[in-house]
Amino acid sequence: MRNPQLNAQGELQHLLTIEGLPAAIIRQILDTAEPFVSIAEREVKKVPLLRGKSIFNLFFENSTRTRTTFEIAAKRLSADVINLNVGASSTAKGETLLDTVNNLSAMLADMFVVRHAQSGAAHLIAQHVAPHIHVINAGDGRHAHPTQGLLDMFTIRHYKGDFTRLVVAIVGDVLHSRVARSQIHALTTLGVPELRVIAPKTLLPTAVERLGVRVFHDLAQGLRGADVVIMLRLQSERMRGALLPSAQEYFKHYGLTPERLEVANPDVIVMHPGPMNRGVEIDSAVADGSHSVILPQVTFGIAVRMAVMAILAGN
Amino acid sequence: MRNPQLNAQGELQHLLTIEGLPAAIIRQILDTAEPFVSIAEREVKKVPLLRGKSIFNLFFENSTRTRTTFEIAAKRLSADVINLNVGASSTAKGETLLDTVNNLSAMLADMFVVRHAQSGAAHLIAQHVAPHIHVINAGDGRHAHPTQGLLDMFTIRHYKGDFTRLVVAIVGDVLHSRVARSQIHALTTLGVPELRVIAPKTLLPTAVERLGVRVFHDLAQGLRGADVVIMLRLQSERMRGALLPSAQEYFKHYGLTPERLEVANPDVIVMHPGPMNRGVEIDSAVADGSHSVILPQVTFGIAVRMAVMAILAGN
Amino acid sequence: MRNPQLNAQGELQHLLTIEGLPAAIIRQILDTAEPFVSIAEREVKKVPLLRGKSIFNLFFENSTRTRTTFEIAAKRLSADVINLNVGASSTAKGETLLDTVNNLSAMLADMFVVRHAQSGAAHLIAQHVAPHIHVINAGDGRHAHPTQGLLDMFTIRHYKGDFTRLVVAIVGDVLHSRVARSQIHALTTLGVPELRVIAPKTLLPTAVERLGVRVFHDLAQGLRGADVVIMLRLQSERMRGALLPSAQEYFKHYGLTPERLEVANPDVIVMHPGPMNRGVEIDSAVADGSHSVILPQVTFGIAVRMAVMAILAGN
Repeated sequence: MRNPQLNAQGELQHLLTIEGLPAAIIRQILDTAEPFVSIAEREVKKVPLLRGKSIFNLFFENSTRTRTTFEIAAKRLSADVINLNVGASSTAKGETLLDTVNNLSAMLADMFVVRHAQSGAAHLIAQHVAPHIHVINAGDGRHAHPTQGLLDMFTIRHYKGDFTRLVVAIVGDVLHSRVARSQIHALTTLGVPELRVIAPKTLLPTAVERLGVRVFHDLAQGLRGADVVIMLRLQSERMRGALLPSAQEYFKHYGLTPERLEVANPDVIVMHPGPMNRGVEIDSAVADGSHSVILPQVTFGIAVRMAVMAILAGN
Repeated sequence: MRNPQLNAQGELQHLLTIEGLPAAIIRQILDTAEPFVSIAEREVKKVPLLRGKSIFNLFFENSTRTRTTFEIAAKRLSADVINLNVGASSTAKGETLLDTVNNLSAMLADMFVVRHAQSGAAHLIAQHVAPHIHVINAGDGRHAHPTQGLLDMFTIRHYKGDFTRLVVAIVGDVLHSRVARSQIHALTTLGVPELRVIAPKTLLPTAVERLGVRVFHDLAQGLRGADVVIMLRLQSERMRGALLPSAQEYFKHYGLTPERLEVANPDVIVMHPGPMNRGVEIDSAVADGSHSVILPQVTFGIAVRMAVMAILAGN
Repeated sequence: MRNPQLNAQGELQHLLTIEGLPAAIIRQILDTAEPFVSIAEREVKKVPLLRGKSIFNLFFENSTRTRTTFEIAAKRLSADVINLNVGASSTAKGETLLDTVNNLSAMLADMFVVRHAQSGAAHLIAQHVAPHIHVINAGDGRHAHPTQGLLDMFTIRHYKGDFTRLVVAIVGDVLHSRVARSQIHALTTLGVPELRVIAPKTLLPTAVERLGVRVFHDLAQGLRGADVVIMLRLQSERMRGALLPSAQEYFKHYGLTPERLEVANPDVIVMHPGPMNRGVEIDSAVADGSHSVILPQVTFGIAVRMAVMAILAGN
């Protein structure tokens, strides 16, 4: 079966998941993003690459932050952006997901940025849209959040250069995190030799080792010698779900403090996809400290999203 | 009394209802829309006709779908679009409708696209705005939805050419449908010789024959020989209102299936304003079948709305 | 301590409050706004001054009207505008105000327009953003609403020319009004010799005289000889708070009617920041009468906001 993300020429047709994405395409996206970072320094932060294109932000699940990053990326490429909080409208009227998408396609959309609570929603849409329409998955259920994974790769490459000598540790709720899934696929594809996940058993998927990671339940052991530490957001609803005793308890065992970070490599970088729970998964002294690259991640995220859109529109 | 939609030169000043609109103006709108359809095939789907104009989407009643079509149309004409979900704000603060509109007028609006649950709201606004401001009715109560009616005319002309030899059947809840009202006025103005409405008695306005339609309560009889079948959306709240026994019962008598469509003309087209209730008023085999022109309606809808805006801005 | 609104060269860096703003800068804003008023008469109501700049409307408190005026102003300057109803998103996820702002800054924002229910929020943000980012306070708690104060000054100058011979009366709920506070600071800075506030004791701050105003509890006495009357909006929640007996009672004593206005100067102008409570603080015959400049205030408001943005972007 052909990769549903690639066209007949093996070029990117949709961005749905990092799983199965060739390393060459990941590198193409990162390379394309480079010049977009420097747009920040210009007077006019715009390029006309997508002028006259209509990009629809289809958010079936509300996420102002993610929606905003895509909106900014699209506007900096001079596209017309239409924001649709779809949950509130047609689906409420009993219309099916595919009817909604077909309708918007008929409005001559060029690209859909899709966020949905259900895993696989973006795939389903990609299977049904006309050939000239491109779909970007902006997060589907627990499945994937590929642009987040890609911006993380951009960040790591920016600070560390080469992936093939790194020790990378992902800390926290891997079980419920589409971000973690996307990161793991990207890091293994790019050849990271030692990829660790650090979490209590209740927050790890069964047989997570098969994804190519080493499992640690002890933070100190897992952080030892790490070049990159990626903290995951702890969703408070997990507490209510009785998977965890309390935020305080979690912080005691898995919260990243400056002291705990000392066992990592001296030039370790600390990442977080945001929004942060200060004092739960991360201490403010780390979040705002010299190892933190959390805000650069956000800046790079705009450039990476611009790159994905520009590549898709060109294919 | 002068037609409130026309200026002293008999040109379109506002688009409020198709009732009373001269056939020449309906044809002018359809003709103007033609070149906008082909914009779809261009690389840059934009024309600078409304550059620097401010178009306000004043939605007192929420409708993401309709709002989106106007937003896209305006952006393709290079206008600046301001979306206002007015219900949620000033009116909640006790401000009157006219105060809200006067305020927005004072912000130098060029055009208002108005959606309101109350019949006559767009008329009221049109009566009070400054002479340079144009009002488009995007649906008011049960009264009118003229751009929907116009895009339906565009669709029929596109597939059938001439209106003066057609048998057109409108099926469903005519009583509560502003869409049906707009369609009936447009079709009679354009000279359709046989216009039928098919519905149970509880879903027809009293004395609907005076609008120039033939009434059928039996679907098979009404569809016989039809060139165009227009299905109406069945609003589920009508069920609760005890006007109808159930969705299943409705489908049994008035749902359009391929079998029932067989009595129509072999090259019949099937239309629906959306969003569809599959399995209630229309069977999926018809909605997605070879007679369906439901998605082209959406595409033409953008072009027709661009045409209305372009004509208004030019007058 | 340096004025947090000015940069090292004494130029406007942020617009947070009119308190402490030098008269020269107020006049610079009003002068810059003048040509923007005439943009209204142009075919293309746009200038490219802010092309490629990203302006974020950060509304932690909902206000469609104010948000719209800033959105229009920014679009007429050709900026890219991102609307964020922040209350509904990140803060709900437990993120701090400064984390939210830091994130948006990292998306390469050029300007934040901030509305917040808490006094001092815009100041806090201004203290923490990168040096190239400008903050405009669009209303914070009971503290300040400087662009409203500035547009009022523009309106008074437009109709009266010179501030130094005027009798100005502010009528109504001064206690809870950030608008009143901004007006009082602006009017005293610009040299108004007689500034009056007219209100019941329960709606006046303690020691309001220290702001440089004369206090009247009787409407007729306070209006005598006034050149400018500024009505304040009476927020209905004040009624519930038992500060006032009823809307009817309030209107009887402080509602502005044509009869009561007769003691003012014959060429008096009447202003109101909107939205109006007709029949509570103001009679419709005054609101819509020949002395009213309430709608011109709105028009000038766009020009003044454009001026503030243009000046900030230039500094």
